[in-house]
Amino acid sequence: MRLVHKYGGSSVATTEKIMAIAQRVAQLRREGTDMAVVCSAMGKTTNSLIALAKKVNDSPSKREMDALLSTGEIQTVSLMAMALQSLGVDAISMTGFQSGFITNDVHSKAFIKEINTQRMEQYLAEGKVVVAAGFQGITEDGHITTLGRGGSDTTAVAIAAKLGCPCEIYTDVDAVYTVDPRIYPAARALERISYEEMMEMASLGAGVLETRSVELAKKYGVSLYLGRALENEKKGTTIMSQQAFFEDMPVAGISIKEHCAIVSFPPMDYNASSAASIFSLIAGANINLDMINQNIVEGKVAFSFSCSDEQALELERQLNASQEGPALQIRRDLTQLSLVGVGMATHTGVAVRVFRTLAQYQIPYYQITTSEISISFTIDKENKEQAVQALAKEFDL
Amino acid sequence: MRLVHKYGGSSVATTEKIMAIAQRVAQLRREGTDMAVVCSAMGKTTNSLIALAKKVNDSPSKREMDALLSTGEIQTVSLMAMALQSLGVDAISMTGFQSGFITNDVHSKAFIKEINTQRMEQYLAEGKVVVAAGFQGITEDGHITTLGRGGSDTTAVAIAAKLGCPCEIYTDVDAVYTVDPRIYPAARALERISYEEMMEMASLGAGVLETRSVELAKKYGVSLYLGRALENEKKGTTIMSQQAFFEDMPVAGISIKEHCAIVSFPPMDYNASSAASIFSLIAGANINLDMINQNIVEGKVAFSFSCSDEQALELERQLNASQEGPALQIRRDLTQLSLVGVGMATHTGVAVRVFRTLAQYQIPYYQITTSEISISFTIDKENKEQAVQALAKEFDL
Repeated sequence: MRLVHKYGGSSVATTEKIMAIAQRVAQLRREGTDMAVVCSAMGKTTNSLIALAKKVNDSPSKREMDALLSTGEIQTVSLMAMALQSLGVDAISMTGFQSGFITNDVHSKAFIKEINTQRMEQYLAEGKVVVAAGFQGITEDGHITTLGRGGSDTTAVAIAAKLGCPCEIYTDVDAVYTVDPRIYPAARALERISYEEMMEMASLGAGVLETRSVELAKKYGVSLYLGRALENEKKGTTIMSQQAFFEDMPVAGISIKEHCAIVSFPPMDYNASSAASIFSLIAGANINLDMINQNIVEGKVAFSFSCSDEQALELERQLNASQEGPALQIRRDLTQLSLVGVGMATHTGVAVRVFRTLAQYQIPYYQITTSEISISFTIDKENKEQAVQALAKEFDL
Repeated sequence: MRLVHKYGGSSVATTEKIMAIAQRVAQLRREGTDMAVVCSAMGKTTNSLIALAKKVNDSPSKREMDALLSTGEIQTVSLMAMALQSLGVDAISMTGFQSGFITNDVHSKAFIKEINTQRMEQYLAEGKVVVAAGFQGITEDGHITTLGRGGSDTTAVAIAAKLGCPCEIYTDVDAVYTVDPRIYPAARALERISYEEMMEMASLGAGVLETRSVELAKKYGVSLYLGRALENEKKGTTIMSQQAFFEDMPVAGISIKEHCAIVSFPPMDYNASSAASIFSLIAGANINLDMINQNIVEGKVAFSFSCSDEQALELERQLNASQEGPALQIRRDLTQLSLVGVGMATHTGVAVRVFRTLAQYQIPYYQITTSEISISFTIDKENKEQAVQALAKEFDL
């Protein structure tokens, strides 16, 4: 049997934690499991490196930042391999380059083009535990890239997909909850959730798993488990295909995303070139769009989208520098709430219950978008807790 | 004009120091010099990483140690590239892999087999300052290797040889001195020294430059300069071909090497297989032999050599583990002194003056070896200062 384990930064923050994880992996190996272990950088290493970079350059080049940040994961995996070796387990560390993660050249958020697992398969066949650096890859030209924050989850799932085995992601949270327990302490841990719901939760800010990793798991049918590192019982959440049992509940959880901004374009003439100019501007700034709204009023197009506060700032900087493009209106310090549930597809009236509840507490809401299994909207950040509590009560979360 | 600069760990210990060096490199670049900059890991990074490794494994595998340590230099070079970019200078960092340093697979002290500078040449042609990670390479199979402590000097000289340009090595000492000034404060800084003398000084423990780097510089005729980082005037030492002016002085300097051990084999029958067993033992332990003594007495061969305390310990450990081979006698805590000077080749009587001086102060000395341009011997470490002072006075150093 093969298995991929992934340990996040807080789970490998100290050499003591690394040793404890090595003990556990060694046990599984001795029981006959072929193990691939993916690690993030230790604790706050990535943040420390970013702080160091900012000291020598206000806006460091992404190529150099990727080279710098990639060192964090390499340190963890070599230490993890050493720890396993000290327990008598044959183990070998692999950098992104060594584990064959070929990516495109979009530094700081690269996409995987290809994974050459030949070397990894060879090591597994030799009985070695493979310890692979998460988060990183290499372009065909040999430049070091990173997959973006949280990219180690993607590394782990991609390896599991290639090796055809389950992937267990260990982190500092117990499970996926119906609502962030820090904001709504009465929230419940979910034993199971569908890929689709988890993707909505992840992309909408639940923050426990990167969307891309869930998407990849769904695409390749990788069974995902999310739980707290080094807990004896499996109290975490299994992410699997959509099942009938989910349909009893219209809303599985509320996902909360902070530090959002809404960027609004002034009304423009409605023609193909105006739309093109908007999207080329967005593409140039490499912005991940969240919610998009477009209305056409009297032949003019009013376009707005939401993104992170940070990306809105970057966009503003670029526009000021280029002196071109429309004057944008940017509204910051918003919180986005999303209600997610595959049951929404069959239960009607969820949207009505949401907005009636908000109206009841006099909470203003801005952009709204909906999908088959989610309803999202932005509110002022100061209304976050009241809104979450009201909605969790309404939908029994 | 092309130029290689190399900055040691203490010279790049903080982001402030990195910025100051970037200023200087930027100035040279603006004046039209094509620059390749080689950096070591920041300050005590390498030692911290070693300490971290020891926490998870008493004797970590050399392959994993190399992967771990290589991250130190990668951090420095990406920060240096960012610092240069913040000054408006086009710069790019290169890891050992990216700068084409192909080595053999002797982890922790790998030898360079080949350097593919095609990429580096391309960057220089594009006007970029190339910032290359010292100390590291990659095997043909893609494993990360290191060139051993001080290997960044070798990286710098190898690049200078390939680029056909001088190499300036910046460190935290002013120059090469006749004797270590911490032990003999009256020592003089040398303006010039020959490759041959510097090699003896380096291999005999002067500690300012790695022997291999000087050897490489001699082989490819690379002009080497050694001085303190960020000093305005060039007060350092130039290492160059042997010149007539050196011959006036029989002794150029005294090199001091601490933490030495003498390993003695019990007398064995003198035949080819006994010698072979000794050397296969040494080769297996990957020991750098220093002084070798062999006497043949009554058909028995008495063989001993000196090496570092640490290597003697490692040898002992291996012998105990294998339960094979002869019982060795190991004498630790010795200091090796070496008098070096190309003038010795033409001045007679230097050895007599050395041992008469030691006798005068009643300092016992053990193994002795001599070369064309050096005399080396070990003494007890507690006699070090007295011996150095007496000899420095005798030879007017």
